[in-house]
Amino acid sequence: MTLMKSLVLEKPGEIRLREIEVNDVLGENDVRVKVHTVGICGSDVHYYEYGHIGPFVVKQPMILGHEAAGTVVAVGSKVRHLSVGDRVAMEPGIPNMTSPQTLAGLYNLDPDIAFFATPPVHGCLSTTVIHPAILCFKLPENVSYEEGALCEPIAVGMHSATKAGVKPGDVALVIGSGTIGIVTALAALAAGCSDVIICDVVEGRLKAAAQYEHVHPVLSKGNAVKEKVQQLTDGQGVDCVFECSGAAAAYPLIYEHAAPGATAVLTGMPVDPVTFDVVAAQAKEITFQTIFRYRNMYPRVIRLLRSGRMNVKPLVTGRFKLRDGVKAYERAALRNPTDVKIIIEME
Amino acid sequence: MTLMKSLVLEKPGEIRLREIEVNDVLGENDVRVKVHTVGICGSDVHYYEYGHIGPFVVKQPMILGHEAAGTVVAVGSKVRHLSVGDRVAMEPGIPNMTSPQTLAGLYNLDPDIAFFATPPVHGCLSTTVIHPAILCFKLPENVSYEEGALCEPIAVGMHSATKAGVKPGDVALVIGSGTIGIVTALAALAAGCSDVIICDVVEGRLKAAAQYEHVHPVLSKGNAVKEKVQQLTDGQGVDCVFECSGAAAAYPLIYEHAAPGATAVLTGMPVDPVTFDVVAAQAKEITFQTIFRYRNMYPRVIRLLRSGRMNVKPLVTGRFKLRDGVKAYERAALRNPTDVKIIIEME
Amino acid sequence: MTLMKSLVLEKPGEIRLREIEVNDVLGENDVRVKVHTVGICGSDVHYYEYGHIGPFVVKQPMILGHEAAGTVVAVGSKVRHLSVGDRVAMEPGIPNMTSPQTLAGLYNLDPDIAFFATPPVHGCLSTTVIHPAILCFKLPENVSYEEGALCEPIAVGMHSATKAGVKPGDVALVIGSGTIGIVTALAALAAGCSDVIICDVVEGRLKAAAQYEHVHPVLSKGNAVKEKVQQLTDGQGVDCVFECSGAAAAYPLIYEHAAPGATAVLTGMPVDPVTFDVVAAQAKEITFQTIFRYRNMYPRVIRLLRSGRMNVKPLVTGRFKLRDGVKAYERAALRNPTDVKIIIEME
Amino acid sequence: MTLMKSLVLEKPGEIRLREIEVNDVLGENDVRVKVHTVGICGSDVHYYEYGHIGPFVVKQPMILGHEAAGTVVAVGSKVRHLSVGDRVAMEPGIPNMTSPQTLAGLYNLDPDIAFFATPPVHGCLSTTVIHPAILCFKLPENVSYEEGALCEPIAVGMHSATKAGVKPGDVALVIGSGTIGIVTALAALAAGCSDVIICDVVEGRLKAAAQYEHVHPVLSKGNAVKEKVQQLTDGQGVDCVFECSGAAAAYPLIYEHAAPGATAVLTGMPVDPVTFDVVAAQAKEITFQTIFRYRNMYPRVIRLLRSGRMNVKPLVTGRFKLRDGVKAYERAALRNPTDVKIIIEME
Repeated sequence: MTLMKSLVLEKPGEIRLREIEVNDVLGENDVRVKVHTVGICGSDVHYYEYGHIGPFVVKQPMILGHEAAGTVVAVGSKVRHLSVGDRVAMEPGIPNMTSPQTLAGLYNLDPDIAFFATPPVHGCLSTTVIHPAILCFKLPENVSYEEGALCEPIAVGMHSATKAGVKPGDVALVIGSGTIGIVTALAALAAGCSDVIICDVVEGRLKAAAQYEHVHPVLSKGNAVKEKVQQLTDGQGVDCVFECSGAAAAYPLIYEHAAPGATAVLTGMPVDPVTFDVVAAQAKEITFQTIFRYRNMYPRVIRLLRSGRMNVKPLVTGRFKLRDGVKAYERAALRNPTDVKIIIEME
Repeated sequence: MTLMKSLVLEKPGEIRLREIEVNDVLGENDVRVKVHTVGICGSDVHYYEYGHIGPFVVKQPMILGHEAAGTVVAVGSKVRHLSVGDRVAMEPGIPNMTSPQTLAGLYNLDPDIAFFATPPVHGCLSTTVIHPAILCFKLPENVSYEEGALCEPIAVGMHSATKAGVKPGDVALVIGSGTIGIVTALAALAAGCSDVIICDVVEGRLKAAAQYEHVHPVLSKGNAVKEKVQQLTDGQGVDCVFECSGAAAAYPLIYEHAAPGATAVLTGMPVDPVTFDVVAAQAKEITFQTIFRYRNMYPRVIRLLRSGRMNVKPLVTGRFKLRDGVKAYERAALRNPTDVKIIIEME
Repeated sequence: MTLMKSLVLEKPGEIRLREIEVNDVLGENDVRVKVHTVGICGSDVHYYEYGHIGPFVVKQPMILGHEAAGTVVAVGSKVRHLSVGDRVAMEPGIPNMTSPQTLAGLYNLDPDIAFFATPPVHGCLSTTVIHPAILCFKLPENVSYEEGALCEPIAVGMHSATKAGVKPGDVALVIGSGTIGIVTALAALAAGCSDVIICDVVEGRLKAAAQYEHVHPVLSKGNAVKEKVQQLTDGQGVDCVFECSGAAAAYPLIYEHAAPGATAVLTGMPVDPVTFDVVAAQAKEITFQTIFRYRNMYPRVIRLLRSGRMNVKPLVTGRFKLRDGVKAYERAALRNPTDVKIIIEME
Repeated sequence: MTLMKSLVLEKPGEIRLREIEVNDVLGENDVRVKVHTVGICGSDVHYYEYGHIGPFVVKQPMILGHEAAGTVVAVGSKVRHLSVGDRVAMEPGIPNMTSPQTLAGLYNLDPDIAFFATPPVHGCLSTTVIHPAILCFKLPENVSYEEGALCEPIAVGMHSATKAGVKPGDVALVIGSGTIGIVTALAALAAGCSDVIICDVVEGRLKAAAQYEHVHPVLSKGNAVKEKVQQLTDGQGVDCVFECSGAAAAYPLIYEHAAPGATAVLTGMPVDPVTFDVVAAQAKEITFQTIFRYRNMYPRVIRLLRSGRMNVKPLVTGRFKLRDGVKAYERAALRNPTDVKIIIEME
């Protein structure tokens, strides 16, 4: 164990920038990455405020952060595809490489996965971190560290769009215009939608989405969503619904606006169980895909950023230096409707 | 319109065998079928007792019955694949052949579908019926009329198993051991399961399922289901769950017993909306398929009956002549746990 | 039968603009369309030159043309979704609506399909044509007749991209930069590719493709394709290969450039059987999808044109009036490498 | 390295039972297996006779054998799911657990996979072998070592049937009634086929297949296959074709007998490239799946053997002791048409 300067969640409500002991042993399949940029996610803020998410409880000081990009400063003896100096995005979940789920290609569902900043696993808001090389993805020259850090939330959207089986020319409805809603809308477009309707009950949250061509922001009020669906689908209903709000009130929108045979993707995590109208879903034979993080998405995300077919630069709405890391978290905790992604730059 | 001797639901609680006016015009793509055997379905009984199911209300006398087999007695001018004398099973839902859903291969989801004995459409408990030839499927010599009538509920199970994407060597859990649960278990086996666990809260209902090899009946009580799942899946969980009970209490079984990446098929129609634990489903990325009747299943069912790979003969637990049609309905309405399928033979 | 001014292929090598007897009876599910714009396809030219394609032989005068858009001038009694005055694209293949293939959602594979200008069926280079309403798709205001006529070849590309199962962030290789190669490249982009490499052995044919962002034209010579694949896929190989050249020499490119687990779509129709290296394909478990026209694609194409996510305007490289229809065909027969689509405007 | 008694291919044509140096170091994720039963595969015989298969050349003495079952005699420190004394089947291909293919669930396509008895990797005809625990699958009490060894060829058939996407009630045609043809037929049945037609040009090879219910053996001569397809599919054609012969002459059978929209699985490895009629395949939009070994199939195979839904006991047609290993290979090399699987029992 080695002392490493890190942004540490001491206990709910208290974050400190200090040295803490971390593993710094470079395994043969690992790389050491000097962290450059780390995004703040809603889950980070939730741990900061409450100290737990579901069964995951912060019981001892934990380094925060799981959306990260940096530079390779050392490579393990068996690593072939990376070299010192490579700029990389880091996929934050390390599965057991010998689990049945991993062999089956479902490594995100391995029950033993170790995920940055999900207790008791430390996050990556440290000077350097050790990470499996296979989970570090080289960034092309024209993709910035900031975009590299954003790969993580984009991967959630891309996994959703991929599981939805979006076909070219589909029309999608995204419910909830938070960060995940927006990256899901962008992923749905990347996956082939001609148009994406995104709705929210808070007008300010639609601002960021409104910047994008082919994304139709709609305030959820009266018949607004219905009319937009009618207009864009000739009354047939949307091919895919992405539930990104976590609100129980969102579910009736699924049955109402889905076309017969449509797919709904459940990405939002409702705090409480929701009321589910099975018969309404059956009448349209809606398929429901549930989402747990993502798998095999980083290379796809990076190619879309490289080619310019996906542009997430407008989503960074706040930038802080590591020394102001606490302020960054305080800002994120404000949940300003027009804030999308707050990032921390290491120094 | 022609007068035709039929079993008519006059109003809730009152069935009469009498003549009633029906369409008897043979279109160029139609056949006229002399009905031989008709099964009684739970929905028939529900109309008999309550006069409505969801939005479908019996407002005027309606002929009952939608699970039927018979003999072709006349063929329309453009019909090529059927001849007078052919024994056929009749698929009861007639879609609009020019709807977008039909063109897309989802004809069961065509909103304009006319389905036997779903008001205001008459059923087929008549001497003869006119039906599109494309929905009449020739029975091989070794498949009986009774089996032909049973094609209808089997098709529900087969559509479920097909949408589940059962792979050879899967283990499935069927919740609810009524008629649909049992035919779903048989379809899951036909689709490749090595073993199917079927559970119910009523012991008597497990009797019929218990006759089948590779079907493991379990009374839902204590840890019985859990232990059987553990034993048959090495603790990994089942690959598919088929919810055929319509009970809200069944849903937690899905999250508990599904393997990571599993599919749940929702066939049972809960009377009330159910409480749905989205986060529990997400942790395993369970896919939920909802089922509305079936499509393109009759030829598959008939081939499995012909080859003997599916045996539904033990499921007929009561046989009545048409003149005793009212008694047949009274018996079905008893919901005897050991009754599976009551059939009516025309004369 | 009614006399109708039409562009008629009298026999191989001889086209005349003249009156010819056609069906003009409006069925209850039909519309009458005043034809506005018709594109010339390679198959049209082939009939013009040789009088046959495979088993299809022009034995009597046949009206040419199957890529068409026009205006509805009359609607059948049962047609609900179209009105007089609607501008529509016409899908040219009329399946038997009661065939098993149609019920199964594979209407393009119905052996009895009647397809414009595939002998003995007349094409649509006539003043008006009768067509099933279900196969006429309303054009939004911002989609031109020319784009409406182009829906037909685009549908081929879209069907290919859909059967390829393109996922967002895939890289594709298109072999052959003729009209179908180019629309397939655009469809692959629409379906989610970050980048599409398109190669051809004739440099001039790459000009049109080169206009498009994210499309990488490569002259098939030496290591050029290999280097581009290496650069865009980090040496992993492409996720999809679209064979649009019909050249036997294209097949080795598939095995060489495909990534393990990739899909190859065979759209090009080789004149002769090709030599197929099964073992090379097996080593990468390549899936081969073969393509016969398309199904259920027009609404998707129109939505992508409407939203502007697909732009095919640069593909029209020659425009002729109907009175110059013969000249239009002579121009198309030149096979100028920089020509993509020649269209005929009715008057 | 440790000396281990093994059956060694010294050079083409020469096999000896002798001691040879092998790795015997037990890694933390490994088990040591005392080998009990090993089947002889066509590839083993081919190495014995010719010393090479495609690019794989036996350059130095190599232990033979890759179809094996045995008993765990030691477990690595991190192994949790196996214990000393467990009877196991061994999956013979060890992928690089950190390759992109493995992460994507396609571990059989990892270019670095080390596969028993594929040079330069030793096989498993040794007293004991070291193997990754994750690739050793516990045999239930009612599954014998012999069946455990047979899991390997069955896995090929199961992977084929799974990639074919067999649906319940499909009819399949298997071309070639060698060992792989037969296990593919059994897998196709397990996956849901109502009937499987298996054809061969050598009558004797149909004997073993003929023992199985629902398998229809047909000598490929005259119209025999055509008539059987006609009879079992009502003239529609088969849903799946499994090409297991490796004969170029088999390919026309695919186009002829496949139904529109069918899938063909190419498992047989033709010595020479085959002539492929793309246009004939396109007319039916046949999908071609190519097969390279298998992945994630052992647990499924074992469950089907345990439940009795698959019975491969009749396939073992010759049994030899290790001391007669050379005789076993000589017998296998005879290619007796009625021989299916020759096995060697260790002592």
